[in-house]
Amino acid sequence: MEFNRKNVIVGQSGGPTAVINSSLMGIYKTAKERGANKVYGMLHGIQGLLERKVVDLQAQMPDDLALELLKRTPAAFLGSCRYRLPEVELHHPVYEQIFDYLNELEVGYFFYIGGNDSMDTIKKLYDYGQLIQSDISFMGVPKTIDNDLAVTDHTPGYGSAAKFIATMTKEVICDAMVYDIPIVTVIEIMGRNAGWLTAAAKLAQGEDCMGPDLIYLPEVAFDYDAFEEKVKEIMKHKKAVVIAVSEGIRVKDGRYVCELATSTPEFVDAFGHRALTGTARFLADSLAAKLGCKTRAIELSTLQRCASHMVSRVDITEAFQVGGAAVKAAFEGQSGQMIILKRVSDQPYICITDLYDVHKIANVEKKVPLEWINEEGNDVKEALIHYIKPLIQAELTPTMVDGLPRHLPLTKSPIQNQIARTV
Amino acid sequence: MEFNRKNVIVGQSGGPTAVINSSLMGIYKTAKERGANKVYGMLHGIQGLLERKVVDLQAQMPDDLALELLKRTPAAFLGSCRYRLPEVELHHPVYEQIFDYLNELEVGYFFYIGGNDSMDTIKKLYDYGQLIQSDISFMGVPKTIDNDLAVTDHTPGYGSAAKFIATMTKEVICDAMVYDIPIVTVIEIMGRNAGWLTAAAKLAQGEDCMGPDLIYLPEVAFDYDAFEEKVKEIMKHKKAVVIAVSEGIRVKDGRYVCELATSTPEFVDAFGHRALTGTARFLADSLAAKLGCKTRAIELSTLQRCASHMVSRVDITEAFQVGGAAVKAAFEGQSGQMIILKRVSDQPYICITDLYDVHKIANVEKKVPLEWINEEGNDVKEALIHYIKPLIQAELTPTMVDGLPRHLPLTKSPIQNQIARTV
Repeated sequence: MEFNRKNVIVGQSGGPTAVINSSLMGIYKTAKERGANKVYGMLHGIQGLLERKVVDLQAQMPDDLALELLKRTPAAFLGSCRYRLPEVELHHPVYEQIFDYLNELEVGYFFYIGGNDSMDTIKKLYDYGQLIQSDISFMGVPKTIDNDLAVTDHTPGYGSAAKFIATMTKEVICDAMVYDIPIVTVIEIMGRNAGWLTAAAKLAQGEDCMGPDLIYLPEVAFDYDAFEEKVKEIMKHKKAVVIAVSEGIRVKDGRYVCELATSTPEFVDAFGHRALTGTARFLADSLAAKLGCKTRAIELSTLQRCASHMVSRVDITEAFQVGGAAVKAAFEGQSGQMIILKRVSDQPYICITDLYDVHKIANVEKKVPLEWINEEGNDVKEALIHYIKPLIQAELTPTMVDGLPRHLPLTKSPIQNQIARTV
Repeated sequence: MEFNRKNVIVGQSGGPTAVINSSLMGIYKTAKERGANKVYGMLHGIQGLLERKVVDLQAQMPDDLALELLKRTPAAFLGSCRYRLPEVELHHPVYEQIFDYLNELEVGYFFYIGGNDSMDTIKKLYDYGQLIQSDISFMGVPKTIDNDLAVTDHTPGYGSAAKFIATMTKEVICDAMVYDIPIVTVIEIMGRNAGWLTAAAKLAQGEDCMGPDLIYLPEVAFDYDAFEEKVKEIMKHKKAVVIAVSEGIRVKDGRYVCELATSTPEFVDAFGHRALTGTARFLADSLAAKLGCKTRAIELSTLQRCASHMVSRVDITEAFQVGGAAVKAAFEGQSGQMIILKRVSDQPYICITDLYDVHKIANVEKKVPLEWINEEGNDVKEALIHYIKPLIQAELTPTMVDGLPRHLPLTKSPIQNQIARTV
């Protein structure tokens, strides 16, 4: 195939997940199998590319063992960034710099693994490519624990985070029940505007576990008074109350619940996202003061996106597949598209990949449908559980060495400009 | 054997661990194998016993599957308590109540699984038993993630918590490295006065991971200014700094670092222990304000003591063994003793059980020896790693059902007074 004489480049962007490296593997292996010449990796995404920080992936993955370890390595192997490209404009120096370097590297296929913000990057690169009639293919590969990408049934990374959240929620509930005293445990789960991750706490419920007593998603305005009343009501017949809350729940006037508490120094990233933290702490402290009982705040924090020791096999397999599908489509002439997952059957669970115009995905957030949340806004409905459950199935055992999961570290420093010279 | 016509009773006390139920199994199975009649479980330890809340363990564990699930169930299956017995005094109504009920249940052997505070309970019951010439045997079975029990080489529960802490630290370090920006991550680990758990973060260091850059244990006074200087120094050559701190670190004047921050409502338990939390948040916020960089606070919180999906097989096996050894010793006439672990060899790791007078263990805290901490007080030495490493070896795979670890819930309500009547 004529296409394949060209080189491939891949980058990772946005927040890490436990399976993003499986997508990287999907791209690398599929590209190699389909005859690609070199497969480059951008270090720290588009930001690294602008600094000419690029590695040759073959040198990083000399054998099958390395590939197996990579699959089990959390976070972005190549590094990530939160870099927002400027608006597309002919002769813009940033775009000229990027395209000059891609041409220098003889790149024909550009893959970017990421979420909303990363799809914005793919969209802009594709648009600029159209302006200058570049023949480079730009493809988006979905990834985000938040599951908030439009059109796709779900996003790789979500299933594993959901599995970890449900597992820890089950274990925390066991722990919360041990004392015969009134105690409220508030578990804070990620999700700025979308409650997909918090909803996963509900999966803890089953024959061996009551599940969380209350679940609050950011899709519904949070009413503190109603919350406190509800907790009191539950405590009449149950000593240990466990509550799952999204970090992003807001009161009616739009303020985040965590903003009601303290004035911690804030860090705002390039996309204007503030770090939200302290929601569980605020609620636990308020309840302790009001109800006079022991309370506990647990933030799953970064752990929920990096716990590669507890991944969903369905998720890690799909992460690989979307990478492979992107390469196949690009090699067949597609560009400006993101791979999406389409659920064709629930029982048995069957999911296929498809393509979708990245312009219609970038910067759009998919939230939990309101009909999947109960009327009181403090629990999720059966339909939501049915949706999530297939995504957390089966495991991929970590490779344990000396008692701990073994990962694949980046072994070489970037070959930077020197690459361009030797190509 | 004459002894075995009598009944056995077992209770769990203090903070849960991921393997405390393995000790319960060790006691139950060994007692049954050695011909014990009934094996009762106190619900919520001695506190439940005072309320005549007792279950028949055989009814809870009808088959081998139940036993396998119990082994993999975190937290205290029977419930726990933090109940401090009054000082021993002849004819004290609390002791009279306990001994009357034990005699009513025809209990000959009393086992209590717990840490420092629980050994205080065994000590007092033994002492009271001596006063009234009771022939009930009182035996302590060690358990605590904190590893702060005297005399024993280590405590069951510690190895699994250490394994989870080291695993999560490795995964968090992967995550911390992804952005090409200065970022400080502070991981807060349990340990009020002893740094054993925090030291386990060091195990993350290996061929594939740099490990945490700084480690602060409560054994050494914390100097904020020196800390900030050290972070600045590291950031000169490294963008992502990861720091492990014990929740219990204090400044020179004795105040906890977390007390320097906020005035959250405090809950003090029956043993006078305050809940410590906010150390990482305080340090992360202070660094963000002073250095102007992104910082993150991660509290491993309750997760580190209930993560039964990531237990150490060495630990869970030893937890079973100490339970079994307690039964064997009691049936052979011992009383007023705690089972200890004695390490007889490092390579290969060999550990045996022995007995020790519980009076010399109760209320004594074992801290990390100062010679295992570096001079600057911000790292641990090789000797400490050698000590911990054998304790986190090998795994016990969770029993996964429908994508999540399956646990054994308490299936029956307490038989309470009705037991006494039918005995």
